[in-house]
Amino acid sequence: MKKILVANRGEIAVRIIRACTELGIESVSIYSEADKDSLHRKIATESYCVGPKLSKDSYLDMISIITIAKKSGCDAIHPGYGFLAENSDFAEMCEVSNLIFIGPMHETISLMGVKDVAKDTMKKAGVPTVPGSEGVVASVEDAKEIAEEIGYPVIIKASHGGGGKGIRVARDEASLVQNYKMTEQEAESSFGNKSLYIEKYIENFRHIEIQVLGDYHGNVVHLGERDCTIQRRMQKLVEEAPSPVLSEARREEIGQTAVTAAKSIDYIGAGTIEFIYDLNDDSFYFMEMNTRIQVEHPITEMITGVDLVKMQIKIARREPIPFKQEEIEFKGHAIELRVNAENPYKNFMPSAGKITDFMVPGGYGVRLDSACYAGYVIPPYYDSMIAKLITFAPSREEAINTALRALGEFKIGGVDTTIPFHMNLLNHESFKNNDYNTNFLSNHDIMN
Amino acid sequence: MKKILVANRGEIAVRIIRACTELGIESVSIYSEADKDSLHRKIATESYCVGPKLSKDSYLDMISIITIAKKSGCDAIHPGYGFLAENSDFAEMCEVSNLIFIGPMHETISLMGVKDVAKDTMKKAGVPTVPGSEGVVASVEDAKEIAEEIGYPVIIKASHGGGGKGIRVARDEASLVQNYKMTEQEAESSFGNKSLYIEKYIENFRHIEIQVLGDYHGNVVHLGERDCTIQRRMQKLVEEAPSPVLSEARREEIGQTAVTAAKSIDYIGAGTIEFIYDLNDDSFYFMEMNTRIQVEHPITEMITGVDLVKMQIKIARREPIPFKQEEIEFKGHAIELRVNAENPYKNFMPSAGKITDFMVPGGYGVRLDSACYAGYVIPPYYDSMIAKLITFAPSREEAINTALRALGEFKIGGVDTTIPFHMNLLNHESFKNNDYNTNFLSNHDIMN
Repeated sequence: MKKILVANRGEIAVRIIRACTELGIESVSIYSEADKDSLHRKIATESYCVGPKLSKDSYLDMISIITIAKKSGCDAIHPGYGFLAENSDFAEMCEVSNLIFIGPMHETISLMGVKDVAKDTMKKAGVPTVPGSEGVVASVEDAKEIAEEIGYPVIIKASHGGGGKGIRVARDEASLVQNYKMTEQEAESSFGNKSLYIEKYIENFRHIEIQVLGDYHGNVVHLGERDCTIQRRMQKLVEEAPSPVLSEARREEIGQTAVTAAKSIDYIGAGTIEFIYDLNDDSFYFMEMNTRIQVEHPITEMITGVDLVKMQIKIARREPIPFKQEEIEFKGHAIELRVNAENPYKNFMPSAGKITDFMVPGGYGVRLDSACYAGYVIPPYYDSMIAKLITFAPSREEAINTALRALGEFKIGGVDTTIPFHMNLLNHESFKNNDYNTNFLSNHDIMN
Repeated sequence: MKKILVANRGEIAVRIIRACTELGIESVSIYSEADKDSLHRKIATESYCVGPKLSKDSYLDMISIITIAKKSGCDAIHPGYGFLAENSDFAEMCEVSNLIFIGPMHETISLMGVKDVAKDTMKKAGVPTVPGSEGVVASVEDAKEIAEEIGYPVIIKASHGGGGKGIRVARDEASLVQNYKMTEQEAESSFGNKSLYIEKYIENFRHIEIQVLGDYHGNVVHLGERDCTIQRRMQKLVEEAPSPVLSEARREEIGQTAVTAAKSIDYIGAGTIEFIYDLNDDSFYFMEMNTRIQVEHPITEMITGVDLVKMQIKIARREPIPFKQEEIEFKGHAIELRVNAENPYKNFMPSAGKITDFMVPGGYGVRLDSACYAGYVIPPYYDSMIAKLITFAPSREEAINTALRALGEFKIGGVDTTIPFHMNLLNHESFKNNDYNTNFLSNHDIMN
């Protein structure tokens, strides 16, 4: 593998290009017309404009991307996260074009991409799943019957949903009927597929996910968990590893379950298995599998010393995973804060514009993954991420203190940021005392 | 300990203030009139002007510093490195003023500060020392006799010397006579004391130093070695840990020797024992002890996970070292590059002035310790350090690759920097192959 096209933008494109550079692999970046001044363009070996500003015309334009990859002599494509990362058609198109898709087999992406199919697959593999409909619900009448059986509250989910869309909770039959229809409409308009499924709604839970790696030689390992419970409208804002709620025995069990799950589908590459961890009885259930590198992968890197993006590349080169499960050492605690260009005082309103000042924190225990710099104009067309601030220390308390210290040094001029949100969160007693679930931000207005 | 005065400037002051903040301790910074815009002033809890631009009127003004500490209600002073860090009078003055000096006892500073006394002390403790004069040489005639006995080449050193000054090599009797007089004159004018001592000159050696920690409860541990062989005019430019020349057995032995050395003087706090490691026969000799935190301490932090500045503070609070020697785990490889405002193409000519652009590298494996920012004007009165770029990875080769990647991203506008020097060095076959000694930069013009 001599040259990799990075089919993404922003910090994850920078992350992947850095890994390529360190491995002695040339990188090709693509950029939209709105991303001419972006860092991922500047630091790659070569870069090409892929199309106009809108994602559908640029970062989602499969034909253009593959054409650039072929013309520039790439032998592989890394999709990052978002955009085409979990598009099985794109993975297949790469394969057909004789380009290595750095990710799992396209069949695996398909399988895990349809939520009820994924759940069913995992159930068959012996992975615990939330009680609910067996696959897609045929009608609202069926939905009522199932809800009666598993008991309210229930959650209605679009089979093809994602990103927090196409999900609704119903606490009684009346709301089930109403929400069923609304979710169906949203699913059809957002995902082009109106099929829904129903599950028991677990209210008091933590989002725990397990990082797994699988290779072409039959090896599958897990790299421990990440706790991504702090979410706003189902969007993760803060992640940490290890999770402060897991006992050693539970950690072992959930990790082994993830390995079983990945093995059952012959998983190749880096993937994440998300679980609902019920705080009421310490049970856990398969939620979904993400067949890509995740935004929050750095915290796992900090506690294991394993470079996950390099591992993706090495696995795609057909190298075996160079360590066994029992050789993976976990050390310390890491936290990631997503610093976005949003105003936390105004309902997280996006704040695109020019970054006039960009003074980043440094020193011991601080890692910053960012594609921003002083003078950079954040375009309004894509996500609002400015930087991922990652801190690591021997203990959770120390990692929080390092994060607070680093947030205090982080000066970003010209746009609103979520730094005040993170400061308030990390200083909040419930967060410090590990006393929260996924509803924390719905139930607490931490900006007042 | 509630409030610490940081009696320093630049990156080490920032480093110490960060540790205070993370420990929940208030910090007081002092700044000269030339340092009004410095970062160490901005990030401290409080800051006070200590005097005019020249160090002797500000950062070396003991009375003013202690006055500020007392008036602002500090209970301790951290001296950093350089300036007053190894001034036993200052340490004693702190003690008399009821301020905790964060460092060893003032008697220890005195003892290790006079090089021939330090050497003699170590010799008596059973630590190997370079053959040479027993203490100070009485006259040039004596010097000739001793040189005859130990054999040429010999090295003439000022007892009170430091920072690469007051050191000369003699390869025969004629040059001994000449250099003896010159060194004597330099010693008198630079250090106010003309006493000299003589040692066998070891030509083909590596600079290996061991980090030690001692506490008030009789515990002494070492945190492994740093290899600081890449020097220019006896100034370190690049450091790495672990040293790529040590076998495991030798590493164990040299570490144990350092612990013996520190124990023999009841050492308290963080200190470094520097050794000459003779590449010809793998023997090692005590060179000197630095009774302070060192510039290159971060590489030890990266491979051990121990925050050395926090440890200094905890030890000064009379806490015991919270781990035993056998519990210290060493993991991976770290390299530190000193990025200075100097022109490596013009004999490292200092390049003070305004930093117009400051785009720092980030991502996995990169730590940056710096007090600079875009718009900051580097004053010409102090050292020329812009940043310490530290990288860490599982192996030396990977740490080098990460460093090269990071150097490539590091954009500093407005002043000349040593970044091109570091790039050339890290790409040099001799460096990559670990085939060099302390004369490497004298013998290789790596800028051409």
